[in-house]
Amino acid sequence: MKRVLLTGASGFVGRHAISPLRARGYEVHAVTSRAMTSGGAVHWHQADLLDGSASSRVVAEVRPTHLLHFAWYAEPGKYWRSPENVRWLEASLALLRHFRASGGARLVMAGTCAEYDWTQGVCSEGATPRRPATLYGICKNALHEVMSGYCEAEGLSAAWGRIFFLYGPGEHPSRLVSSVASALLRGDDPSCTHGNQVRDYLHVEDVAAAFVALLDSDVTGALNVASGRRVTLRDIVLEVARCAGAPGGRVKFGAIEAPQGEAAEIVADVRRLANEVRWAPRYDLTSGIAQAVDHRRAESAR
Amino acid sequence: MKRVLLTGASGFVGRHAISPLRARGYEVHAVTSRAMTSGGAVHWHQADLLDGSASSRVVAEVRPTHLLHFAWYAEPGKYWRSPENVRWLEASLALLRHFRASGGARLVMAGTCAEYDWTQGVCSEGATPRRPATLYGICKNALHEVMSGYCEAEGLSAAWGRIFFLYGPGEHPSRLVSSVASALLRGDDPSCTHGNQVRDYLHVEDVAAAFVALLDSDVTGALNVASGRRVTLRDIVLEVARCAGAPGGRVKFGAIEAPQGEAAEIVADVRRLANEVRWAPRYDLTSGIAQAVDHRRAESAR
Repeated sequence: MKRVLLTGASGFVGRHAISPLRARGYEVHAVTSRAMTSGGAVHWHQADLLDGSASSRVVAEVRPTHLLHFAWYAEPGKYWRSPENVRWLEASLALLRHFRASGGARLVMAGTCAEYDWTQGVCSEGATPRRPATLYGICKNALHEVMSGYCEAEGLSAAWGRIFFLYGPGEHPSRLVSSVASALLRGDDPSCTHGNQVRDYLHVEDVAAAFVALLDSDVTGALNVASGRRVTLRDIVLEVARCAGAPGGRVKFGAIEAPQGEAAEIVADVRRLANEVRWAPRYDLTSGIAQAVDHRRAESAR
Repeated sequence: MKRVLLTGASGFVGRHAISPLRARGYEVHAVTSRAMTSGGAVHWHQADLLDGSASSRVVAEVRPTHLLHFAWYAEPGKYWRSPENVRWLEASLALLRHFRASGGARLVMAGTCAEYDWTQGVCSEGATPRRPATLYGICKNALHEVMSGYCEAEGLSAAWGRIFFLYGPGEHPSRLVSSVASALLRGDDPSCTHGNQVRDYLHVEDVAAAFVALLDSDVTGALNVASGRRVTLRDIVLEVARCAGAPGGRVKFGAIEAPQGEAAEIVADVRRLANEVRWAPRYDLTSGIAQAVDHRRAESAR
C-alpha cells in the first residue's frame, strides 16, 4: 500500500496533486492549515506544520510510506524576503525527521528556480551554480542540501523538484496570467512591464502531475520541473488577451517599470524530467492559457 | 551594557570564551544543558536548546544584546554523519529568531573548515568553494547561508567563524593531542597514522579569544578562525612527545591506517582575522602544546 502525506494540499500546486496521486494508486493523506475540506476519497488532516507537535502528531497518525511536501510561506510580493522562510525551513526539516522516524521511505520536496545563479544561462541541475539572491531561495537551497545529506545518511530515497514559473486555476489574483486575464475580462486595460523577459512557464496541473510522476519513480536528486521552452512575458500576455477575446493593443506594455536587476532570462533544462522520469506536459502554452482564461471567466461569471 | 548569551558554555570552546568576554566588559549569560555550574561572576542558565520552548524562554529572560553560539552535537567519531546535526541546525535557526525577537543586535556563530572543498588548496573565505562532504559540514554551511540571508533581511550584524583544528585543556580524551599525551604520560606507546597530513592547529584558548574579539568587532561575514600555519600531524605528535619527556621513537607511526580519501592538506587563510579583526594568537605550537601537555599531566596526577 502506498500511503502519501501531501503537505500544502490546499495550496496552488498541492491541490492539483491529489487527483494524479489517486490515479497512481496512492492512499492520499492531505495536510492543510486551513479549515477542513470535505473528505471524499481523500483523508484530510488539519495541522499547522509550523507547530512541531502538530507536525509530529499527524505523521505518527498517518505513518506515510511517501511524502510530497509543498507547504511553504507563499504570500505574493512578500515571500521573497520574509523571515517566515526560516520558520518553514525549520518546519520542513522537522517534518523530514518525523517522516523518517515513522518509517517513511520515499519523498519529494518542492524547490525553486530561485536557487540558481540566473546570470549563467539555461538552468541545468548538474551544471548551473546555485547562488540564491533572496532569503526564499537561500532557505530552499539549504533545505535541499540538508535533505540530501540527511537522506543519504539515513537511507531514504529523495528527490527535489525545482519549480520555475506557473499559472492556472487557483493562481493568486495578483500574479501575471490571472491579473491580466481578470483586467481584460472586466474591460480594464492592464498595465505591464516591457515584457521582453524570457521565462519558462508550465501549467500548474502539469507541475503537480510532474511531481507525482517523480514521487512515483525512483529518480533521486534535484530535477527541474518546467517546460524547457522559452517564452517572453509579452507573448504570454498577448496569448491571454487572445483567449480573453481582447485586442492585444489594450495591454499597456512599459507602463510598469521592470524591477532593477531583474534577470533577462530564466529557462530550465528539462532533460532529467523527460529522460529519467519519462514525463511530458499535457498542456502547451496555447491550450494551457486557454484553459486558465476559461477558468477565470467561469469564476467571474459566478 | 553589553549582555551576551553564550551557548555551549560548558563545551570545549565555549568554556574558554567566558574569561575573555568578561575581560571585554560583557555581562555573561552562559547556557548549558548540563547540571548547573556554580555562579561566580557569570549568570548560568540550564536549558536544552533542542527544546524550542526552553530556548525561547532563556532568550526572553536574558534579552541579550549579543549572541555567541557554540552549542552543537559534538560526539567524537559520530558527529560527522549523525542526524543530530539536523536537529542542531533547526535549534540554531530558532535561537537566531528568538534572539532577533528579543531585540538582539550582534551575533557570531561557530562554523567549520568542513564547509570548504578540501581539494582546492588553502581555504580562503572569499575564494574557496564550499563543498561539504559530511552531514556536519552540510548543516553548518546551511546555517551560515540562512543566518546571513536572515540577518541581512532583518538588519542584524552577524559574523561566522570557521574553526579548523584545535587542542588544549578540556579536549576529549579520544582526540589527537590528548590521546597521544595521555598514552605517553602513562607509559604506553601510542599508535598513529602515517602523520604526513598537513593541518592548521590552534590552541582552544586562542580559538575562544578570537571568537570574542570577532564578536566585539563590527566585522561581518565568514572568517577563518585558525593559525594560518601548516603543520604535519607527525610534527604535532613529536612535539607532544617532547613536552611529555618521551622519545619520539615510542610513537608507532603508520600503525593505524589513515581514512580513505582523507584530505592531504587543510590550512586556513587567516588574513581577515589578522587584518580586519586585528587579532593574533597568544600561543604558538611550542608554547601551546607545552601548556596542553602540562594540563593533562596535572589532571592525571589528581
